[in-house]
Amino acid sequence: MKDYFELADWKIIEGEFNPGDNRFAESIMSLGNGHMGIRGNFEEQYSGDSLPGTYIAGVYYPDKTVVGWWKVGYPEYYAKVPNATNFIGIDVAINGEELDLALWEVLSFRRELDMKQGYLERSFTAESNSGLQVAVTARRFLSMARREVGAVSYSLTPLNQKIELELIPYLDGAITNEDANFGEIFWEAFQSEAETEEKNYSGRGYLNLRTKKSDFLVAAAMEYELSKEPEEITALREKKYVNNRIFLTAEAEEEVKLTKYLGVTTNRDYQDEETGNQAKIRAKEAKQAGWQKLFAEHSRAWSDIWEEGDIIIEGDTAAQQGIRFNIFQLNQTYTGHDPRLNIGPKGFTGEKYGGATYWDTEAYCLPFYLNTRDNEIARNLLLYRYRHLDKARENADKLGLEGALYPMVTMNGEECHNEWEITFEEIHRNAAIVYAIYNFVEYTEEKKYLIDYGLEVITAVARFWEDRAHFNPRKNKYMILGVTGPNEYENNVHNNWYTNRMAVWCLEYALDTIAFLKDEYPQRFQQIWNDLNLSAGELEKWRDMIDRMYYPYAEELGVFEQQDGYLDKELKTVSEIPEEDLPLHQNWSWDRILRSCFVKQADVLQGLYFLSDCYDLTTKKTNFDFYEPRTVHESSLSPCIHSIIAAEIGYQEKAYELYLRTARLDLENVNNDTEDGLHITSMAGTWMAIVHGFAGMKLEERAGEEEQQKILSLTPFIPEKWKSYAFKINYLGRILNIEVSPSEIRVEREKGEPLEILLQGEKQVV
Amino acid sequence: MKDYFELADWKIIEGEFNPGDNRFAESIMSLGNGHMGIRGNFEEQYSGDSLPGTYIAGVYYPDKTVVGWWKVGYPEYYAKVPNATNFIGIDVAINGEELDLALWEVLSFRRELDMKQGYLERSFTAESNSGLQVAVTARRFLSMARREVGAVSYSLTPLNQKIELELIPYLDGAITNEDANFGEIFWEAFQSEAETEEKNYSGRGYLNLRTKKSDFLVAAAMEYELSKEPEEITALREKKYVNNRIFLTAEAEEEVKLTKYLGVTTNRDYQDEETGNQAKIRAKEAKQAGWQKLFAEHSRAWSDIWEEGDIIIEGDTAAQQGIRFNIFQLNQTYTGHDPRLNIGPKGFTGEKYGGATYWDTEAYCLPFYLNTRDNEIARNLLLYRYRHLDKARENADKLGLEGALYPMVTMNGEECHNEWEITFEEIHRNAAIVYAIYNFVEYTEEKKYLIDYGLEVITAVARFWEDRAHFNPRKNKYMILGVTGPNEYENNVHNNWYTNRMAVWCLEYALDTIAFLKDEYPQRFQQIWNDLNLSAGELEKWRDMIDRMYYPYAEELGVFEQQDGYLDKELKTVSEIPEEDLPLHQNWSWDRILRSCFVKQADVLQGLYFLSDCYDLTTKKTNFDFYEPRTVHESSLSPCIHSIIAAEIGYQEKAYELYLRTARLDLENVNNDTEDGLHITSMAGTWMAIVHGFAGMKLEERAGEEEQQKILSLTPFIPEKWKSYAFKINYLGRILNIEVSPSEIRVEREKGEPLEILLQGEKQVV
Repeated sequence: MKDYFELADWKIIEGEFNPGDNRFAESIMSLGNGHMGIRGNFEEQYSGDSLPGTYIAGVYYPDKTVVGWWKVGYPEYYAKVPNATNFIGIDVAINGEELDLALWEVLSFRRELDMKQGYLERSFTAESNSGLQVAVTARRFLSMARREVGAVSYSLTPLNQKIELELIPYLDGAITNEDANFGEIFWEAFQSEAETEEKNYSGRGYLNLRTKKSDFLVAAAMEYELSKEPEEITALREKKYVNNRIFLTAEAEEEVKLTKYLGVTTNRDYQDEETGNQAKIRAKEAKQAGWQKLFAEHSRAWSDIWEEGDIIIEGDTAAQQGIRFNIFQLNQTYTGHDPRLNIGPKGFTGEKYGGATYWDTEAYCLPFYLNTRDNEIARNLLLYRYRHLDKARENADKLGLEGALYPMVTMNGEECHNEWEITFEEIHRNAAIVYAIYNFVEYTEEKKYLIDYGLEVITAVARFWEDRAHFNPRKNKYMILGVTGPNEYENNVHNNWYTNRMAVWCLEYALDTIAFLKDEYPQRFQQIWNDLNLSAGELEKWRDMIDRMYYPYAEELGVFEQQDGYLDKELKTVSEIPEEDLPLHQNWSWDRILRSCFVKQADVLQGLYFLSDCYDLTTKKTNFDFYEPRTVHESSLSPCIHSIIAAEIGYQEKAYELYLRTARLDLENVNNDTEDGLHITSMAGTWMAIVHGFAGMKLEERAGEEEQQKILSLTPFIPEKWKSYAFKINYLGRILNIEVSPSEIRVEREKGEPLEILLQGEKQVV
Repeated sequence: MKDYFELADWKIIEGEFNPGDNRFAESIMSLGNGHMGIRGNFEEQYSGDSLPGTYIAGVYYPDKTVVGWWKVGYPEYYAKVPNATNFIGIDVAINGEELDLALWEVLSFRRELDMKQGYLERSFTAESNSGLQVAVTARRFLSMARREVGAVSYSLTPLNQKIELELIPYLDGAITNEDANFGEIFWEAFQSEAETEEKNYSGRGYLNLRTKKSDFLVAAAMEYELSKEPEEITALREKKYVNNRIFLTAEAEEEVKLTKYLGVTTNRDYQDEETGNQAKIRAKEAKQAGWQKLFAEHSRAWSDIWEEGDIIIEGDTAAQQGIRFNIFQLNQTYTGHDPRLNIGPKGFTGEKYGGATYWDTEAYCLPFYLNTRDNEIARNLLLYRYRHLDKARENADKLGLEGALYPMVTMNGEECHNEWEITFEEIHRNAAIVYAIYNFVEYTEEKKYLIDYGLEVITAVARFWEDRAHFNPRKNKYMILGVTGPNEYENNVHNNWYTNRMAVWCLEYALDTIAFLKDEYPQRFQQIWNDLNLSAGELEKWRDMIDRMYYPYAEELGVFEQQDGYLDKELKTVSEIPEEDLPLHQNWSWDRILRSCFVKQADVLQGLYFLSDCYDLTTKKTNFDFYEPRTVHESSLSPCIHSIIAAEIGYQEKAYELYLRTARLDLENVNNDTEDGLHITSMAGTWMAIVHGFAGMKLEERAGEEEQQKILSLTPFIPEKWKSYAFKINYLGRILNIEVSPSEIRVEREKGEPLEILLQGEKQVV
């Protein structure tokens, strides 16, 4: 699918209609505004292949778990993101014939996503069996300024005759989920209304549905205006469907336009009885404001996002389009306005993988929001986990352990996942939660976060590691057995280097944080110390674990051994795998993958990335040289980390090659599964590959200096093909503008006080 | 449930009716004859809790696989043993009231299984709401002499008034499977007939159903006779149900008896069009023969089985009843008359665990049949696997491997199981297939089996090990990574000692067999050598693997380490587990079980049992002392092996204690799951614990002698509580009768030529 979409700096353009690629294009053309999202489905009836998708943030259905063989501790349900009321729908009938691009001949077709202003436009001309031709232009957006508002404008022009036209704006809640485990319908009817207004030749509709079991209400209200006075309007109200049927006559070449205004609310934000009313108010307000005003507000909001968050690449349109698509989708998915929300692996673009939150958020997405948006947004991502701390404690308790274990997959803090080797064993995720706090505090210097929220989480995670590791007297070492590391092509291994290392890092950070808070906030600290029942003895235990943790290490190779026994494997490289065997997970049985040396995604290297400070370039190079040739990158989260390390150790070409593997992952349907939805969380990795990789941005200790505060360091290079690239960074109240070209590196301060940074290792004041 | 059934040498007696225990009792009271089986369900309508169960050997339904997360290589279906036509049913109405023990008051009740003659008898008196009292005696058997025949006699006596009686013998195919993955109905209607004979006041019924997808036909035909002339008979024929409704009048205290004769056939044995006809013929023949003759044939067959296969224990009725129940059920489940059949884990007693064959057959069941029945029966168990060799080759190929991998669970040779850690990794099962050949040949001296069938299987398994192991140049050893050993409380481990050891044993046996056959059958051998494409180089590779296989070993402890890293675990003993945590699999999450040192079932010890010759008593004792305290025996297959080793190393009390854990497992519902069906395959372990354990029976090398033939050795002891025990052994054409009492060990030859044996280490001629 390399050239499916036209190359353009700000747009994704599908220039012709290919029914077989429709689901793929629908995913790409998805819109979202943090509160809700819709796939690029057609407004009018389409009887061809399509995955209808409307998703409302934070609304889920607890779908009964399906497993082959039950294990103690598995969750009862998997939180699925339900396909919700289709609110964009506008059916069309012309002279009694239904407009349906699966049945009409498509004469021309163009679907384009405008990333700069955040709207989707589709235009086509089509001819019916009876020879009737029409031109349609449909444009829509979900407002970034008014989260509960969306608008669709639908223009139709008969091309070769006068027509009797029916336009049928509707709200349809008789929808299903393809990904339902047992084919259940997730929604039940709650309220519906449809009415017409004789006087204004207008009408409205309202549909309020309730999820079964979880009792979420999602209310949608529609208002509309017409470019022309209709002959008649009728209203239909069913329990899960409402419409207005508008009868018009249009002359040949006369354009008729319907503008549909939508209010969409949930009882996550209002009392049950108020939810529906609020949707109606939103729709009404939107109609009053009108398309122009709404769109202006919306595109201004996008303009603000791009102003700070864009990465501009000169000389490589494919790379430019790729990175913008990633930044665009990330900002559509999560806006940080609601700390109860998080970043689903498919955002608002598909049903798969249900639950909203994976360790992806902390390990990959946080740096993006931290450096491109206000601090509040990253802080909200942290607070999400803070609010789930009690659930994480329950989760650890289920496994018979002290402290807290954050879930692998969750919507509300409860674990949803049901594979023992992941759910129970992929515990390294716990370290990422703490690492995110560290990252946030280092980049924002909001030390107060630690005393208000951070320490509680850090302590609970430290206690988990304290209990989960055990002391092995035979080897005089602490060990962590039976885990799955980031490389999920190993299951139930002993002493995964990354996990052991990050566990110790958590303990170190816990001790550092405690020492720091004791000095800085002595009174509040004493209270927390008591509340958390901390003791000198416990801290002593942590120190002992730090001192005597066991790390698998192959001395003769200078390589951190991914886990005990890794080097006993048949040590091949990816180049030795027959091409037809790739991707391995689609061709090899699981045992074969497991006993092979092939690495799914950065594991030891993930640790070297996180704890970059602790390892010298030689160590990084030795480990990269060993692991990269054995890594199949069958997770979309993998190449970015390898790219960053490659950049750091001077493998610039490799860094660029690895970057390319993710930048256009969805646009080129690299994994052949974009039809299910976009790979939202890995998009942040693409950003990281440029900012942390190519530009080499990190925080460094001020060597030999007393000052605690770290210094921002940049060591940029530019890929050969590029003329320049530029991005901005929000850091300590400054906005820094970084521009890199082959001849020059410019760092400018757009906002805030002067700042000392390291540029290519040299101190400079910006 | 310790005292639920009365103690008796030959009977299992339930003396009162407990609706809450009905499923449990139904399992215990199951009947089978190798061709078919039925649970101890009531003949007449019962609206209380019950698990209706009729099962036909070899008939299965390919039930769509259910998994949470699909892995490449998983089977599409799990072969379920479908609940088949209920053919024992006789509904009863008295004065228009339906007899139903859930609704009537049960005044007395007795259900007893007679193991000596192989029948089930149930008698009760009950009173209806209207005060009507009846006495019923129902007796039934499935003929061991005519496999396709069963008979039910049903006597009813009104106790306190004259009654209008309706007796309704029926065949009901409108049945369901509780264990269906997706609630599917497995059967579709094919043929049904019901007719009455005016002249003889009789009638008949016939029902032939077809399984969906797998197209098995199961035809049931019924004939009957009455003790009294009826007033009228009507017939009802539906697509999946037929009956005769017999109207009678009975005076108070007048007994009325219906005898129902059944023919049950499948298209496994006949052409489709002939299957139904044969069922009708069987039923007709049975009626002609009459109850007395049929029962006499049947009980004679049982008498023959007991004559050779009984174990007689004096002084311990509970132990006597327990071992007889095990022997009885094993003989009901598998009779060896059909080499296409095998031994299901629940036999004909429940639906759970679907597929018929596990490694239990070779590792546990074979010795029982080998020593208590004609050689043909054990040979048929071997031929079952021989016939599936091509499927086993396909199975290995699915995993990308050479040779053959026998399935974990199968009905027709195809793998049914769907947990990667078992399906793909519990590959030690392959060794058990070869070990069974070895066992068979050693005990029968049918060396010809090797050239006709054995070598093909042995070679295919050897090649599997050849490919599955890899050479590790860093350690100069062959290794087998990513396996699950017999102890399923470890998954995906490296170098499971048992697996590595048995793999090498397979290679050794392959080389020995090849050498032997080359000498004994030079011509046939040359042909096989060519057909199998064997080469000197391949044999050399096997020798190298034998020489350089890696075995984890803890030198300082003298213990074979269960797998790499086992000794890194927290080494606790079972006595340290809080009682409320047991059984672990019901209380601990899987990760906790996996990283603990606790052993589900004999693993290293299983190897020491199989390869007993190769290890001295000290080694056995050291390993037993290490592993037994860490073994939770949460598989019913575990205690027998530990018991045998305990007996061998002189831990007699321990051996007895471990024996007791299985002998009455089902009768006392130890695992609290007997309601699902009996633990058929582990029953053979109970037999092994007495014969191989208490009596110490094994084959030993003739030290220092040229002769190849091994010598039968016995080293009996008797548990303190017992006065004596005795059993017979079929060995090399002899029947040996072994009797052990505290004062005396007697070995008598009942049949065949004199034989030299070792008794307590001393040579004797019997």
